[in-house]
Amino acid sequence: MAKDTKPRRPRAETPKGFRDYFGAEVTERKAMLDRIAAIYDLHGFDALETSGVETVEALGKFLPDVDRPNAGVFAWQEEAVPGGGSGDWLALRYDLTAPLARVAAQYRNDLPSPYRRYAMGPVWRNEKPGPGRFRQFYQCDADTVGSASPAADAEIIAMLASALEAAGIARGDYLVRVNDRKVLNGVLEAARVREDQAADVLRQVDKFDKVGAEGVRALLTAGRKDDSGAFIEGVGLAEDQAAPVLAFLTAKGADNARTLANLGAAVGGSVAGAEGVAELAEIAALLSAMGLDEDRVVIDPAVVRGLGYYTGPVFEAELTFEILDDKGRKRQFGSVAGGGRYDDLVERFTGQKVPATGVSIGVDRLLAALREKGQAGRAAAGPVVVTVMDRDRMADCQAMAAELRAAGIRAEVYLGNPRNFGNQLKYADRRGAPVAVIQGTDEAARGVVQVKDLVLGAQIAGQASVEEWKARPAQVEVPRPALVETVRAMLDR
Amino acid sequence: MAKDTKPRRPRAETPKGFRDYFGAEVTERKAMLDRIAAIYDLHGFDALETSGVETVEALGKFLPDVDRPNAGVFAWQEEAVPGGGSGDWLALRYDLTAPLARVAAQYRNDLPSPYRRYAMGPVWRNEKPGPGRFRQFYQCDADTVGSASPAADAEIIAMLASALEAAGIARGDYLVRVNDRKVLNGVLEAARVREDQAADVLRQVDKFDKVGAEGVRALLTAGRKDDSGAFIEGVGLAEDQAAPVLAFLTAKGADNARTLANLGAAVGGSVAGAEGVAELAEIAALLSAMGLDEDRVVIDPAVVRGLGYYTGPVFEAELTFEILDDKGRKRQFGSVAGGGRYDDLVERFTGQKVPATGVSIGVDRLLAALREKGQAGRAAAGPVVVTVMDRDRMADCQAMAAELRAAGIRAEVYLGNPRNFGNQLKYADRRGAPVAVIQGTDEAARGVVQVKDLVLGAQIAGQASVEEWKARPAQVEVPRPALVETVRAMLDR
Repeated sequence: MAKDTKPRRPRAETPKGFRDYFGAEVTERKAMLDRIAAIYDLHGFDALETSGVETVEALGKFLPDVDRPNAGVFAWQEEAVPGGGSGDWLALRYDLTAPLARVAAQYRNDLPSPYRRYAMGPVWRNEKPGPGRFRQFYQCDADTVGSASPAADAEIIAMLASALEAAGIARGDYLVRVNDRKVLNGVLEAARVREDQAADVLRQVDKFDKVGAEGVRALLTAGRKDDSGAFIEGVGLAEDQAAPVLAFLTAKGADNARTLANLGAAVGGSVAGAEGVAELAEIAALLSAMGLDEDRVVIDPAVVRGLGYYTGPVFEAELTFEILDDKGRKRQFGSVAGGGRYDDLVERFTGQKVPATGVSIGVDRLLAALREKGQAGRAAAGPVVVTVMDRDRMADCQAMAAELRAAGIRAEVYLGNPRNFGNQLKYADRRGAPVAVIQGTDEAARGVVQVKDLVLGAQIAGQASVEEWKARPAQVEVPRPALVETVRAMLDR
Repeated sequence: MAKDTKPRRPRAETPKGFRDYFGAEVTERKAMLDRIAAIYDLHGFDALETSGVETVEALGKFLPDVDRPNAGVFAWQEEAVPGGGSGDWLALRYDLTAPLARVAAQYRNDLPSPYRRYAMGPVWRNEKPGPGRFRQFYQCDADTVGSASPAADAEIIAMLASALEAAGIARGDYLVRVNDRKVLNGVLEAARVREDQAADVLRQVDKFDKVGAEGVRALLTAGRKDDSGAFIEGVGLAEDQAAPVLAFLTAKGADNARTLANLGAAVGGSVAGAEGVAELAEIAALLSAMGLDEDRVVIDPAVVRGLGYYTGPVFEAELTFEILDDKGRKRQFGSVAGGGRYDDLVERFTGQKVPATGVSIGVDRLLAALREKGQAGRAAAGPVVVTVMDRDRMADCQAMAAELRAAGIRAEVYLGNPRNFGNQLKYADRRGAPVAVIQGTDEAARGVVQVKDLVLGAQIAGQASVEEWKARPAQVEVPRPALVETVRAMLDR
């Protein structure tokens, strides 16, 4: 082997698909999560924080990527325990639901039942990174474990609406759409869809938004040509089998009552289907009692939700205001949260049925929405910068900064090389500093300090006349004891 | 292979060395971190959040576990990129300093210089778990990158003191001890310690607290017998080589001025040593100007700090109050934070010197200290529990809970099976509920609601006389519109 005397330098790069968050990107997300956590807490949900690492067997395989059943998670094997066989496989959690199911099973004798918990934190997906798609992102979940009552679903849905409003999404800018997996199962039963056809049928049903009712009808039966002229094979259902599925997809009426009636017809004689319709009716009644009108939460059969583990009510929150996409076209902002009932996840561990329902908010998408609405995205307030005219006077500078902080004013001393004063003002500019404090040896001897209003200075430099310049001086000399009050007055104006 | 028709159930277990945090364990830590972040922000430090995953090459190997240079981190290899060779090795970060060095190099043209940043979040160590030692834990760091000035170190040290006080540690209950690696290097130079002996000498110096000055002298020279009678071999220095090391270890005087004079003598003619002493003198002067007396921050040569990457001032914050250890013996609480200057970490990436200094707070230990002092560890306030007498009245119950929440009162509806009312009160007890709300069909018809003070009820059940029982009824019936005010009055008393 060739001797490598000079190792190459490590690359200073975020790993592919990961990113760094700076300043306001961090604090704005935190502020949003704090507001959401307060709503969860108000509803009696308790905080839970599990670690980022779980055993692979506890996580299970519930990611939608069915084509690569072993992919999707970051996993590694523990070192073998001496004399104890091979080590466990560990993995980073890919959501907050799987760890909750593990916790609900592990502590089932100690937790209150029903157990309401919220959790927020990063999750990891070992996926191909793409624009705006990252391999670590935040989720913010609330779940109720141990209640089969549709009241638990209704409560989560109502709480989601409150959380969106607390985050800064105005009423009218969002809509929570609710469906029930049992209704869909009932429709498939009524349509005599074989079990081995169900997944195919669901895949076509999911295209409703794109190809419309007639498109789905063709895809369920004999097939159709797509826009490029290519023929897409159909599932092969008979026309009278496709009919109930179409009835289901187009069941949304002018109000919940009519939608429910249409769904009742679509499920035909299916017991599961009727149960699903009854659950939706109960949820609709509870939401109405809690004061949520149909312009905030509505029953909508078009909501399917990708994850395979849902067993009952499912829902999705969409933001309804328009934004411009990459190509400058108007489109609705779209989904920011979703959830539903998953009655089988805890049973994996214990063998006993433990009903559960919950919601997950897509933190980064919701934050992006707040930025679109001007509710976030402002640069963080920069600190007051105390400049340094002379290294020997560092102690005085630190004392001035300490005094400002004691008064609650964000302040820092310039810690670079003090020789070039222009660099200090450039630094203050880069920091977004509203005010700079200057005290040379001469000023110190006279017991005064210069206070420079950088915001006003920038305005004046841009536009003011000489008269204005004189009338509103951007820099004032004040007695040293007046430092804090002078700075505060500048910050307040 | 035998056919395994019934796969075994997954174990519901936290992976070895990891743990879950419930309720107040989460919210108290968060509250403490919020208070510390506010102090960092006040000092002009900006938030930075990097992801948990870094490339192994960016992280580097700076963990103290020198015996297992490849251990200490959780690492895995990315799948090979088709046609692009083998995949990167990725790992979970083991601290927040290595990612900062990577960020400082990666964004060196965009960040202000000096760059002050704070970061808080989990880090992971692939170590053997032990009692109270976990493989995921929180750190809370603040660093200044790009300033070689001792003023940057002094600022960090002063900020650490403020952060401890903001977290809830009273003045007098902590002491920050400051040393300088250059002083130690100067002492080794003065003692003519060969480079290959330096690590051995440091190992013995670190035993000063345990074996005292004479013990260290023996270990540096010919060796000594330990308590068990076993002979510990010495490093083999001559007596006149050991002398400056001992002078260094015992250099702490009655005040900083005397300590500095003693250190000046200990480093003899070493230039690096004199530089270190001058740095400590400057830091001491700045801290004094910022109003930090020697009972809060003091120069102490006994502080060494394990990590290999420190190059200048180092410091450690200790809590000085006594607690009882596992065996009931009094001992000081000990270290909760530490840091220092590391001028070479960014250079790894860029080849250019970038001075840096920072502090890391051990979040879990500091939180444990707050619990010792009664500043944390209280159970979180439970919610008001609205009981359910009849499934059909769920909507009314939800409406009552919604009304309480609208008034800012934490409230939840019982979502278990309502048939056994005793279970509902047991549930309320387990939730730590202060108040229960009860409204059966009869009460609803009469337009009233029962409000039960569970705190008072528990007191009365324990001790009250019949007279008190009557005078202070734990349960009252009030008109339905008086629900919120009645609950609030009970919560306030």
